Amino acid sequence: MPDREGMREALAEWRPEIDREIERVLPRDLDADYLAEFFGAAHYEYDEAAIDDALSTPVWDLLDRGGKRWRAVAFLVLADGLGGDPAELLPYATIPEILHNGTIVVDDVEDEATMRRGEEAVHHRYGTDVALNAGNALYFIPLKIISRNPADLDPAARLRIYEMLTYELNRTHLGQGMDIRWHNDDAVDITEDAYMEMCACKTGSLGRIVGRLAAIVTGHDEQVEEALARYMEKVCIAFQIGDDILDVEHTIDADRAGDFGKAFGNDIHEGKKTLMTVHAVAHADPERARRLEGILADPASTEADVLEAIDVIQATDGVDYAREEAYRLSAEARAHLDDVPLSDDARAQMDEFARFVVERDA
Amino acid sequence: MPDREGMREALAEWRPEIDREIERVLPRDLDADYLAEFFGAAHYEYDEAAIDDALSTPVWDLLDRGGKRWRAVAFLVLADGLGGDPAELLPYATIPEILHNGTIVVDDVEDEATMRRGEEAVHHRYGTDVALNAGNALYFIPLKIISRNPADLDPAARLRIYEMLTYELNRTHLGQGMDIRWHNDDAVDITEDAYMEMCACKTGSLGRIVGRLAAIVTGHDEQVEEALARYMEKVCIAFQIGDDILDVEHTIDADRAGDFGKAFGNDIHEGKKTLMTVHAVAHADPERARRLEGILADPASTEADVLEAIDVIQATDGVDYAREEAYRLSAEARAHLDDVPLSDDARAQMDEFARFVVERDA
Repeated sequence: MPDREGMREALAEWRPEIDREIERVLPRDLDADYLAEFFGAAHYEYDEAAIDDALSTPVWDLLDRGGKRWRAVAFLVLADGLGGDPAELLPYATIPEILHNGTIVVDDVEDEATMRRGEEAVHHRYGTDVALNAGNALYFIPLKIISRNPADLDPAARLRIYEMLTYELNRTHLGQGMDIRWHNDDAVDITEDAYMEMCACKTGSLGRIVGRLAAIVTGHDEQVEEALARYMEKVCIAFQIGDDILDVEHTIDADRAGDFGKAFGNDIHEGKKTLMTVHAVAHADPERARRLEGILADPASTEADVLEAIDVIQATDGVDYAREEAYRLSAEARAHLDDVPLSDDARAQMDEFARFVVERDA
Repeated sequence: MPDREGMREALAEWRPEIDREIERVLPRDLDADYLAEFFGAAHYEYDEAAIDDALSTPVWDLLDRGGKRWRAVAFLVLADGLGGDPAELLPYATIPEILHNGTIVVDDVEDEATMRRGEEAVHHRYGTDVALNAGNALYFIPLKIISRNPADLDPAARLRIYEMLTYELNRTHLGQGMDIRWHNDDAVDITEDAYMEMCACKTGSLGRIVGRLAAIVTGHDEQVEEALARYMEKVCIAFQIGDDILDVEHTIDADRAGDFGKAFGNDIHEGKKTLMTVHAVAHADPERARRLEGILADPASTEADVLEAIDVIQATDGVDYAREEAYRLSAEARAHLDDVPLSDDARAQMDEFARFVVERDA
């Protein structure tokens, strides 16, 4: 997720420190001391080179390709704004970031993606076995930070973090499960509420982890935790909808300019369900709705098909409808901050962040 | 892992109850009430049918194919023998069992397995995307049992379980990482200690979870927990070595009987590293060692190749060496129980169990 104003400065300031901290969790080159400290002493003998190849190499290949680490930065801004010391809490900032990169690797296997951040997908470069094991390892490595306990949290806070992560990571798999099942169906017979729930679970869970974690590590109660969770969830859904709108708008612009390319109508080619297609199938006349479903289900859809699909979407004012929904979510997200005892600076940054995700044009 | 005497009765007695308990964690047919209770209320609306297809259907297909649930039963025998109430602790018995089935689904994708328990591998039947998401969900669903807290454990015990699971599930991925990297290498230039560590991490971690969990839920200290962890780890490694020996012995028997079939020398066909092949490569004369590596690396190895590989193993007394190692581990495992305050019945069952894994002939 790109940045804006206050968040931009925070991103630039923190990014190198976040990566150094991730290196403390999973070094670029593993050695015996690290393995013994982080994973416990070997009962026989670790094969450091094999573990390095299986874990550090694919993970750092992915991390070095980019990513703004906005989840880590949002955590730090919130924790700071709630009275915590960001320098002390930095290790916790890596938790959602590492989890996120784990889901990327696994999702790319599930979605049969070939590219990621402009290069080969991790499983294409290192094999599905190495990629999956490394991706899954990233689900558990960050949990270790809680027992390492760098901020000397009391046992109740540590238990609360474990229970929170269990709750959210279970929901992530519900969301991904819904998305996969829909993707494997040709029909788009899902409700808008189910679509929103899928986003809330799949995309929103990692965001909610950011908000909840900031509340817990700064000693705030469940009301603050829940408000920050809702703020982050809605920002994430709004961001997702914004992304989907941009894909359609870029396609319309490219068509007007006669500039077709490989990025033309990606989501429609891939048969991705979006708020716009769900809305269009429900509101277009039945014959056109079936045609839209047919184009989405067709892996060999042409440029003409994609443009026809967009026509069906636009006949139901799909882009405008989705944009209004995203704006509504952004406003709701900001309202969730009303009763959160944030510093003025952090409130302003989070307010801007929630506006940015719907106002950006790239 | 099959049974013997005391364990056989325990397996027969508990198996139906364990499956009913797993159904309480993940029902065969999900409904709205279950989803709201287990995963939390929907923020919008769950698509129950899609979640059922994505989660319950593939998971119960796998569970209904069999499996002795020996991890759950070993937990119940230990917990009972440590003074706990098995009926009350039954929900915790499902934790290692559900985790184990999750690793099966994921490992089959990683290993490109086509069959599992006599039927199509889960990812062949439901697609890699559904299988992986369901398999990964099984890593987090059982963690929820801890926060459900059916035995009313105090917060310190719950935190200890979360930290223990984090520790062990991280080690699982180290073990699988080593195994995958070795599998992708043609050379077998690993030490026996590294091989043992791989087993201890990959196979032993789930066993250790059984032992540790039994200690924690019955309120025992870290010394008891560690002793039971070591007992279970060594039983698991001994079982693994026993399995690998049986594969070689069945091949020798089939050769003598002229009875070649598709199960002929499976491990060698698949290029699997075992204690016997690691030992043979290190101790055979260099030319024969290279030939053994070549056969293991060759996906098109013939029956004659497999028999030649076994000759190299036997020239280093590989089977006898591995059997002695398994017996040694079994004895060490039993010795770990010496200072554990187990009931006589449980001690006898666990003693038999550790003997059985090395004495079985099928």
